[in-house]
Amino acid sequence: MENKNLVMDYYQLTMSYSQFKLGRMDEIGYFDMFYRSNPDHGGYVIFNGLDKVIDYIKNFTFSDSDIAFLRQKGDFDESFLTYLKDFKFKGDIYSVADGTVVFPNEPLITVRGNMIEAQLIETKLLLLVNYPSLISTKASRIVRAASGHGVMEFGTRRAQGETAAIEGAKYAYIAGAVGTACVEAEKEYGVPALGTMAHSYVESFDSEYEAFLNYAKTFPTKTTLLVDTYDSLNSGVPNAIRVAKEYLEPNGYRFKGIRLDSGDLAYLSKEARRMLDQASLFDCKILASNSLDEYLIQDLLNQGAKIDIFGVGENLITSKSSPVLGGVYKLVAMEKDNVIIPKIKFSDNIGKITNPSYKKLYRFYDKDTKCALGDVIALANETISKDHYRLINPMQEEMTKTITNYDVKELQQLIFKNGELVYQVPSIEETRIYCKNELDHLYPEMKRFLNPTPYIVDLSKELLILKREMLCKKQELIESGQTHKYSKR
Amino acid sequence: MENKNLVMDYYQLTMSYSQFKLGRMDEIGYFDMFYRSNPDHGGYVIFNGLDKVIDYIKNFTFSDSDIAFLRQKGDFDESFLTYLKDFKFKGDIYSVADGTVVFPNEPLITVRGNMIEAQLIETKLLLLVNYPSLISTKASRIVRAASGHGVMEFGTRRAQGETAAIEGAKYAYIAGAVGTACVEAEKEYGVPALGTMAHSYVESFDSEYEAFLNYAKTFPTKTTLLVDTYDSLNSGVPNAIRVAKEYLEPNGYRFKGIRLDSGDLAYLSKEARRMLDQASLFDCKILASNSLDEYLIQDLLNQGAKIDIFGVGENLITSKSSPVLGGVYKLVAMEKDNVIIPKIKFSDNIGKITNPSYKKLYRFYDKDTKCALGDVIALANETISKDHYRLINPMQEEMTKTITNYDVKELQQLIFKNGELVYQVPSIEETRIYCKNELDHLYPEMKRFLNPTPYIVDLSKELLILKREMLCKKQELIESGQTHKYSKR
Repeated sequence: MENKNLVMDYYQLTMSYSQFKLGRMDEIGYFDMFYRSNPDHGGYVIFNGLDKVIDYIKNFTFSDSDIAFLRQKGDFDESFLTYLKDFKFKGDIYSVADGTVVFPNEPLITVRGNMIEAQLIETKLLLLVNYPSLISTKASRIVRAASGHGVMEFGTRRAQGETAAIEGAKYAYIAGAVGTACVEAEKEYGVPALGTMAHSYVESFDSEYEAFLNYAKTFPTKTTLLVDTYDSLNSGVPNAIRVAKEYLEPNGYRFKGIRLDSGDLAYLSKEARRMLDQASLFDCKILASNSLDEYLIQDLLNQGAKIDIFGVGENLITSKSSPVLGGVYKLVAMEKDNVIIPKIKFSDNIGKITNPSYKKLYRFYDKDTKCALGDVIALANETISKDHYRLINPMQEEMTKTITNYDVKELQQLIFKNGELVYQVPSIEETRIYCKNELDHLYPEMKRFLNPTPYIVDLSKELLILKREMLCKKQELIESGQTHKYSKR
Repeated sequence: MENKNLVMDYYQLTMSYSQFKLGRMDEIGYFDMFYRSNPDHGGYVIFNGLDKVIDYIKNFTFSDSDIAFLRQKGDFDESFLTYLKDFKFKGDIYSVADGTVVFPNEPLITVRGNMIEAQLIETKLLLLVNYPSLISTKASRIVRAASGHGVMEFGTRRAQGETAAIEGAKYAYIAGAVGTACVEAEKEYGVPALGTMAHSYVESFDSEYEAFLNYAKTFPTKTTLLVDTYDSLNSGVPNAIRVAKEYLEPNGYRFKGIRLDSGDLAYLSKEARRMLDQASLFDCKILASNSLDEYLIQDLLNQGAKIDIFGVGENLITSKSSPVLGGVYKLVAMEKDNVIIPKIKFSDNIGKITNPSYKKLYRFYDKDTKCALGDVIALANETISKDHYRLINPMQEEMTKTITNYDVKELQQLIFKNGELVYQVPSIEETRIYCKNELDHLYPEMKRFLNPTPYIVDLSKELLILKREMLCKKQELIESGQTHKYSKR
């Protein structure tokens, strides 16, 4: 597929041009990608999209038509256009793996590069992580609600564009969906694509029975029939049973399933199950769809609905109840003569103040339960003790907790070194298994939908001290009215 | 760009295969695309995406790799794969024009074709209309809230995938946005792409002043400075003014603008305006961004905020408060020996019962105000009187209204005839002007955000009678318990 590498904010080019004209193309910066709050007031996010970021970085060049376009914009000189024509990302990228459970304010991707390359990738990197992470997070909630029953991704037609349709199906699968309706998602990614019929197929015949019989003749080994075109219980299910008894069974086939797509799914599924069982069609599955989400699925199961597979459309593919993951990308340090110079972004909103400097992210696992106990964000050069650690709540420093019986794991891995990929990209199936494992090692209280227990994400003592010092220094400068005469440090 | 023509629900292929195996490839069907409710409880939708549908239909083929993929799925025989390999859409498509104001339940696109071709295009057609229409509708609300002040689309990084980023920028522009941050949207569609700097640019220098000065030196004719990295009023604005006075003005340049990206935008913009005016920078524009939407913009202007341009990100590009337009595609008729056989889809939910048969959509305009009075959905062969018409409320048939002083316009146009494009596709600029004109001819009461007056969309008497007859007939069959022995008519 053609790379659309001008999917970037124009400011990335104007900033880069300015840095270029000032001869600052070798200034080194560190940028963190993180997000600030979990969608759906949930307890976590499943990080995804690194695979897309890797493809992007590997292939990031400006095509001739990109250069021609930028030339006619009139804002850049030829020396810069030549620089872009020869551009290749040569920095370092650290990232958590796809499928990892992550939390607000954690550095998920850290980029070290010259200010031009590091700024040029901002928008696309965010775009490539935000949506995949959003959808896998949503899908994981829906899959959990379905408690072992299958979840099918059915939202292609309601997706926000073609990329969302295909990628959404893929990331839903990684988070535990069993398949999709989207054929392209199987072609590109191997996500099992399934489907049977629409109402139009049924209506195109003179009778529902005739439609069902003809479909069964075409697909005798996988007959699943949509039973709600006229009346699910008075017409659809009886016609389906008749086809099973009069055509499938006499010819040695088992009837595979029915699909309910409207009405009271709790009632209809129970009645349909009863009718199917009465006809000894015990192995005939019931698939249900109709604006389902995690709450409706939970409620249906609480009511004893006899549904084997849930088809979920718009609520999954757009994460309708919470359709944005607000990933951001912030400068956290610069580097001069191998010395890190921490940077911080101020804000009146305390939640928007960044964590300064080049950092590492660690996770502690209880040695007995194997579950995640908490994370710590530390300065990159800190050593994390392997046997006891004092976690400090960054919002209330008096709140501390010392842990001992743990294994500790660094979450970010080196992905690109000097622009070269040094990471073995896992297969989709591997990521799917890894993701399930990640969720299995998160305490249930942190996964519930209502008021999940907040997971502990602390700053190391060294990082806290640095942050406080930087805030105090900036505050003093502002209060003394000196900032607009802000002198060199 | 490569056509991803397997972005379709798998059931389109299984249904088509069944029709193919039954020798029904020449059965003719009519399908309507419509939606059921307006996003954001608004009064209308702006239809868009026809341009994408046209590209899709013109280029809809199955590639060799598509065929190879479908072969290994194992569900289809070689005769069908050969049929797909030679497939070309040869039907007729009628559609309202891009940029048209439309309402729930109106047939926006009508497809007449054989059952295979008409079913194969379902998902992609919906995908290509749902998101563009959603975004142009949302953008039109935001543009209206801005009452003449500019709206910039800033959401690329939060878009649900790359297609959404690019197409969203385009359809926001069609609905009245003045530009975008997304460079690719200008390259592909000519949407003006603008941008200046991120906080990282400011932080990469030793002082804010130095950053501003250097940016001004790079772009002296278009210096717009982001002033909130440290403290908007105590640092950013004074530093910006200093650059204007010490560098831009002595060199003969006017200072173009500042951008506020956090804090209390009403207060900050008024204070910043006062400071800029005091420095005689009357023509320096103030651009504001930070999670804005139509309600916040309206509220800011009500408070007298001095903002010239609003940058709108995630709330626009995802239509965050209402992120799904639920367009559907339903069989409404079949045709045998040139006779139309109407079809209807039942539902327990009265709103989901379809309007049967091949239909036309008309709009009445008041001859004096030139505003739209109401629409009527009529059977295709009806003649609509040019001088008096009795509108009937389909939910309350006693409610009628006779109109006289009107011009009437048929809204759907023929786009494809026997698979050939017979429509002159307007340019984006033409659609943008057309869209503005459409909104200008809608009464203001129908455009307000809270409780808009519902626009009248009536069914013709003939259509109402047909629908009622079909409902009664089906109801009788169901009640007599005959539906699963449903005989040929």
